[in-house]
Amino acid sequence: MIDGIALALSGGVGGAKLALGLARVLASEELAIVANTGDDFEHLGLHISPDVDTLLYTLSGINNPETGWGRAEETWACMADLKRLRGETWFRLGDKDLALHLYRTAQLKNGASLSAVIDGLRKHLKIGPEVLPMSDQPVRTQVETDEGLLQFQQYFVRRRCEPVVKGLHFSGASDAAMTPRFAQLLASSTLHAIIICPSNPYLSIDPILAIPGVRQAIKGSAALTIAVSPIVDGSAIKGPTAKLMTELGVPVSPTAIVQHYGDFLDGFILDEADAGLASSIETSGIACSVTSTVMRTLEDRTRLARDVLDFARTLRPMKQ
Amino acid sequence: MIDGIALALSGGVGGAKLALGLARVLASEELAIVANTGDDFEHLGLHISPDVDTLLYTLSGINNPETGWGRAEETWACMADLKRLRGETWFRLGDKDLALHLYRTAQLKNGASLSAVIDGLRKHLKIGPEVLPMSDQPVRTQVETDEGLLQFQQYFVRRRCEPVVKGLHFSGASDAAMTPRFAQLLASSTLHAIIICPSNPYLSIDPILAIPGVRQAIKGSAALTIAVSPIVDGSAIKGPTAKLMTELGVPVSPTAIVQHYGDFLDGFILDEADAGLASSIETSGIACSVTSTVMRTLEDRTRLARDVLDFARTLRPMKQ
Repeated sequence: MIDGIALALSGGVGGAKLALGLARVLASEELAIVANTGDDFEHLGLHISPDVDTLLYTLSGINNPETGWGRAEETWACMADLKRLRGETWFRLGDKDLALHLYRTAQLKNGASLSAVIDGLRKHLKIGPEVLPMSDQPVRTQVETDEGLLQFQQYFVRRRCEPVVKGLHFSGASDAAMTPRFAQLLASSTLHAIIICPSNPYLSIDPILAIPGVRQAIKGSAALTIAVSPIVDGSAIKGPTAKLMTELGVPVSPTAIVQHYGDFLDGFILDEADAGLASSIETSGIACSVTSTVMRTLEDRTRLARDVLDFARTLRPMKQ
Repeated sequence: MIDGIALALSGGVGGAKLALGLARVLASEELAIVANTGDDFEHLGLHISPDVDTLLYTLSGINNPETGWGRAEETWACMADLKRLRGETWFRLGDKDLALHLYRTAQLKNGASLSAVIDGLRKHLKIGPEVLPMSDQPVRTQVETDEGLLQFQQYFVRRRCEPVVKGLHFSGASDAAMTPRFAQLLASSTLHAIIICPSNPYLSIDPILAIPGVRQAIKGSAALTIAVSPIVDGSAIKGPTAKLMTELGVPVSPTAIVQHYGDFLDGFILDEADAGLASSIETSGIACSVTSTVMRTLEDRTRLARDVLDFARTLRPMKQ
């Protein structure tokens, strides 16, 4: 139990793990999770929303823990036949995963907002906490690379993050608006904490922050904002964060993450491996908490969730 | 071997069976099959084209012979999950069948014509004869019933042909054009025969005939036009033809089929069970041939195909 609502900002796997921990620790009405939709794209006529789906599958316990995306106990009959027909199979969609995609695409075609569709999926999958897309309008991450400008999934899945990244663009962000419920939560006096999950800051959190008004709303919020470091001992737990930081000329260090988020952070959670950085970060005015941030088991997820919430509780008097 | 090209007009199962027989008897370049696309619709964001698919699956030997639609050795993981998500599952799409639908929908979204997409599928499925949609423009059969106007698949699949039919409309037909290759074949001096498969005349063949210019082109063609009776001994082999004829106030008889097709028929193939009707049909100026039209085995299909082609050969001197 907390005195208000915790709002988590999440990208893919790492974010979903912490979100699951928070969902186990908090009552349903105490948690809302905002997902990055910069990774979304249209493929095979379907609306693909990878970070939303990773959240939905993880929170409902039907995710594939080995791949980090898609469904557990998946079958691949459709992809096998699509290959036979020489269709595009570089972006893998399992038979079960396709069901969610057909549902979402049909609902969107019928005029439903992405928020409404995701809320329907959340209910059908019996997920308690709210899951919100950052925006109902399309925002599409584009990666400027040494091979030219690539759509995010072309970079991430098709080219397996191999091209050297020179910059990132969030196409459509300036014309997009926060989803109404996201804006409402950020403005709410009952918001207890804003938790930036240990997702890739550049690829997963920045698209959320690129939507007009989000940074200001976080800064002006009654809640404390706490980020969990996605960098542990000079590398990322999963995904291309470290490679990307190197290519962008940023040291692969939690300190760089703190500097990247800038002035809206109240607290930062460091892994034990980086405990030595706490004092220098605190000198810059950001409170630090050191804990084990690596989430291998469900217990790790709930323990880290508790640590984050406890940290917010201890910091609260500072803000008031 | 025939001296030219045979052009078959086909609807669903019955048409595909004869088309398969023709494909076994003729060389690839001697056969083209035009499919009804009045049954097409958009569902779950996918372009559904049932009669085309029945042809593609039948001609490539991967059809489900029990259902008459869809794939052999199909799996249903996607539909099972779609049901869990409360998506629409009244129109069943198996996991393998979905591959073709995703391929087609993506290609159409990329701007390809339906003809081009079907030709690609045909090649990938290693089908020899040409398979053509009747039109690249949308024609949508609508069924006027005692329950109101129903989209074809709503009537056919969702309501299982239960509503009483009062009339049929082919929405879009007057604005549609024959596919260029269909028009080219009808106008070709090398066309040997136009074969109207034993498909439902009202639901499967009439949409083709509703496209501006098709009737005239058939009538003006150098080829003989032969229809195979879809009615045998007062009932239809499969599907709602007999029920529909009764509801439309038409006697369930091959004679009614001949009258329905009207003045462009040169020959008509009757089942042995209806041999007694041959003389009265011939009196009306349409040549008749009596054979066994029921296609249970592959041998039945090839034998009927041979009978149709032989009949065309014997009739040819009459036309010239």
